[in-house]
Amino acid sequence: VNPDRLSLNQITVRPWSLEEVVKGCARHGIGSLAVWRDKLAEVGVTRGATMIRDAGLRVSSLCRGGMFTDPAVSAPTALDDNKRAVDEAAALGADVLVLVCGPLQDTDLPAARRRVADGVAALMPYAESAGVMVGIEPLHPMMISERSVVVSLRQANDLVETVGSANLGVVVDAYHVWWDPDLEREIHRATGRVLGYHVSDWLAETTDLLYCRGLMGDGLIDLPGLSAAVEKAGYRGPVEVEILSHELWRRDGDRVLDDVTDRFTRYV
Amino acid sequence: VNPDRLSLNQITVRPWSLEEVVKGCARHGIGSLAVWRDKLAEVGVTRGATMIRDAGLRVSSLCRGGMFTDPAVSAPTALDDNKRAVDEAAALGADVLVLVCGPLQDTDLPAARRRVADGVAALMPYAESAGVMVGIEPLHPMMISERSVVVSLRQANDLVETVGSANLGVVVDAYHVWWDPDLEREIHRATGRVLGYHVSDWLAETTDLLYCRGLMGDGLIDLPGLSAAVEKAGYRGPVEVEILSHELWRRDGDRVLDDVTDRFTRYV
Repeated sequence: VNPDRLSLNQITVRPWSLEEVVKGCARHGIGSLAVWRDKLAEVGVTRGATMIRDAGLRVSSLCRGGMFTDPAVSAPTALDDNKRAVDEAAALGADVLVLVCGPLQDTDLPAARRRVADGVAALMPYAESAGVMVGIEPLHPMMISERSVVVSLRQANDLVETVGSANLGVVVDAYHVWWDPDLEREIHRATGRVLGYHVSDWLAETTDLLYCRGLMGDGLIDLPGLSAAVEKAGYRGPVEVEILSHELWRRDGDRVLDDVTDRFTRYV
Repeated sequence: VNPDRLSLNQITVRPWSLEEVVKGCARHGIGSLAVWRDKLAEVGVTRGATMIRDAGLRVSSLCRGGMFTDPAVSAPTALDDNKRAVDEAAALGADVLVLVCGPLQDTDLPAARRRVADGVAALMPYAESAGVMVGIEPLHPMMISERSVVVSLRQANDLVETVGSANLGVVVDAYHVWWDPDLEREIHRATGRVLGYHVSDWLAETTDLLYCRGLMGDGLIDLPGLSAAVEKAGYRGPVEVEILSHELWRRDGDRVLDDVTDRFTRYV
């Protein structure tokens, strides 16, 4: 992958504020950024969008909409929050709004998956009017009770087909999908609808279900093979480095970005 | 599920020796047992088999063969160990030898999966001669670098079809497969080839990738629904309670078995 396509997902340097991330990108020659809504909220959407635009940064994605499955939250309330996420993505000019669809909170998995399908279908007319692309990101099955009942690219592709909006596609995160025997087939099936591609690595000694991702090259994922498959499916946009890692977050942010740019060049 | 079908997988009371487990089954009215090879080795195969037979226990499975993927172990050496596992299963009169196929140890996942397919194919003539049934158990994708590159029932079914032996089938463990959107379809596809069914529960707060399973009823798996699907696929044999849990292993074994029999009646 051409190093110019590197986008920094700001969770990789979680201790930094949005402003520190924007300045860090400049120092390290990184031209794209993925923004998290909680970090954006700290400075406010308008100020955050101005800051990013003034720095000349592209916003590869906004993370995240979704979370349709909480039985304590009504469908209209969940829809409202997702509309706000669409507005924020529009304000930032983000390539895509990422959907993390929501965890399972009881034993009725089919019902939770129906709530997700209904939630995405309800959101898309609004996203279409706003001209915002929306990407369903399947998450690793181990995160089903923490983050997402959408657990495979096949399932995400099925959802995209069922909902049938021109603004809807999928986001491929290496860490979440690399184990899947159907991966190559499903990436091919998503041709033209891949809206984002995220990289990190699966450490052989994974000790935490959420915050134990590795730098590219430190683990077991065949990233060059995956990058080739995603490119063949027509995706030519930014490639986000998104590493959720307690170990990385303890380190100095600039040293982390040194490693990120180096590893991206060598292992993605 | 009829309580008579309860089989105790001995890992659920890991601190106990095989002899203690056999006596524990008698005390708690449990008629079937799943045996682990390391525990069997502690007493020796002949003595262990006699002990189990004298107690009138059925052996629902022997755990485990497989582990075909270690690049440091030659294919013939891996085959030899699997042949010994077949011999032990025959000596115990076990319903099935469970295969845990082996973890990924480098970035070449397709190659590791080919080693598994070759390993199973090489083993089956021996198992057929010995009259031993062999079950491929897909493990949760989060265990790919610890235990198994076979991560879904679909993949296990594909393997069974590819190898094509009358003695080969699949083992369905609720904990490993419950997240799978294709589960119902793949259980149906396995009709007549389901050789074992294991239960435990997925805790909402899972903190360990290997040893954090819950007692039935404490988590998010729809066990009655899964039990019905497995029964519809023709499986009428013992239902193993297999709970790998540091928390449970700290408790008194008899109290654990009280809970196991109670929960089995109410939640499976």
